[in-house]
Amino acid sequence: MADKNRNRPIGVFDSGLGGLSAVREIRSLLPAEDLIYFGDTGRVPYGTRSRETIRRYAAQDIRFLLSHADCKAVVVACGTVSANALDMLRENNDIPIIGVIDPAVEAAARATKNGNIGIIATPSTIASGAYEQALLAQNPDFRVTSQACALFVPLVENGFVDADDPIPRLTAERYLAPIKESGADTLILGCTHYPLLSAVISAVLPDVTLIDTGYEAAQSLAKLLSEREMQTPTAPPGTSRFYVSDEPQGFAHAASRFLGLSENEPLPTVERVNIAAY
Amino acid sequence: MADKNRNRPIGVFDSGLGGLSAVREIRSLLPAEDLIYFGDTGRVPYGTRSRETIRRYAAQDIRFLLSHADCKAVVVACGTVSANALDMLRENNDIPIIGVIDPAVEAAARATKNGNIGIIATPSTIASGAYEQALLAQNPDFRVTSQACALFVPLVENGFVDADDPIPRLTAERYLAPIKESGADTLILGCTHYPLLSAVISAVLPDVTLIDTGYEAAQSLAKLLSEREMQTPTAPPGTSRFYVSDEPQGFAHAASRFLGLSENEPLPTVERVNIAAY
Repeated sequence: MADKNRNRPIGVFDSGLGGLSAVREIRSLLPAEDLIYFGDTGRVPYGTRSRETIRRYAAQDIRFLLSHADCKAVVVACGTVSANALDMLRENNDIPIIGVIDPAVEAAARATKNGNIGIIATPSTIASGAYEQALLAQNPDFRVTSQACALFVPLVENGFVDADDPIPRLTAERYLAPIKESGADTLILGCTHYPLLSAVISAVLPDVTLIDTGYEAAQSLAKLLSEREMQTPTAPPGTSRFYVSDEPQGFAHAASRFLGLSENEPLPTVERVNIAAY
Repeated sequence: MADKNRNRPIGVFDSGLGGLSAVREIRSLLPAEDLIYFGDTGRVPYGTRSRETIRRYAAQDIRFLLSHADCKAVVVACGTVSANALDMLRENNDIPIIGVIDPAVEAAARATKNGNIGIIATPSTIASGAYEQALLAQNPDFRVTSQACALFVPLVENGFVDADDPIPRLTAERYLAPIKESGADTLILGCTHYPLLSAVISAVLPDVTLIDTGYEAAQSLAKLLSEREMQTPTAPPGTSRFYVSDEPQGFAHAASRFLGLSENEPLPTVERVNIAAY
């Protein structure tokens, strides 16, 4: 039974580019696995939209992945979808679905020394309370400070990520002031775009441990495949296919950067999808 | 003939909130007209997307307006759609369609003294070259400097609009440096969101005349209705109906602010539309 469909691909989706940071970790941890990625670049960002819209978009995203490839597991590499739609995605689909919240919360619980944990994420993720609930379920004595950072995704998507640049730096100082005041020793980057701003965030909060949700989700996926004996039996390297809902060309360049490909490597092949039809 | 359907409404659409600045001007200039507005809040922003996606979204937006109300004219209160899809919208629809580019370009041509004109807009509007072409068609001796401002729409949509706030101020200084260096005496705010940043822009460019595209489009609409004897014969005030593709509640509050309604006036009624079905 466990052996039957072990060579099926792993699906990964995000509102846009951010989930590629999870893809990079998955490729590194599980180099033999085939991956199929969908980035909803025609409708990014999700984090400033309503819960109802996020759930509708997420249902289409996973329907595309599952109708296009017979995935053995799906990673929801998007904090906003994980916070607002994971229950629905799990109810309606019969394969393991890994979100970014539980793995990040477990990592934060292991990392904190003073029990004082910060969370930054998109407005809709913070409004959902999902990270706070999961942290307090781990340990009701945790002190949790959360902060929505509406401008962080536009900053990342437009390349304002340099720690020496006063625009992202001042924006980070503004948003992170309550985290700094709280005395948190650990900060969950509750959106898969935010690791791109790590240098800026660390400049503002130099002594705080940052939890990268995409990295933790990849670790969680590797553990699940191992426990359930679902790893592919094929030899590495696995294939990676990319799909987006806007123009593929710009995405291919960004993906190459996100995935850490060298300039000699060919750009990944990216195809366009009419996601509203799913 | 001219009299027949003069009491039909005027349609207005935008990617989100920005077009409401045009609605405000239309309500002020043409208080007897009925208006129907669509804001694509479920897919905003348009200005960082590809031309193909912008055209597909714009076609759906106008199909919604025309299937929902028998509009006598439509104002495309969005610089990005005006720059990338106006030709197609006019080809496929048999009513007058007013974009923001020509009215703004004519106003800039009247306003400039030194023939040196700046344009700021979204990346896709600047990439289209539509404003530059229209300006040089007015006068091939104009000197034109254009600059994409990718972060301005997220700044406006998230309320970062105060001239004393260093975040929008530094962002404006960065983007507007080439305009300042060019010696332009007139600047077209080529996106209907940008008038909300007027105070910030004027602080950076104190001696430059700003052209508000929504205001100019409203003037152009009034002129067209007058010339073609298409004004409604009904007495003011006309009705205004609002439709959006995401959650209506937040939009109603923002609309009240954009339209300059007093706090005693009731919030406008806003309904939700599944725009991808059009």
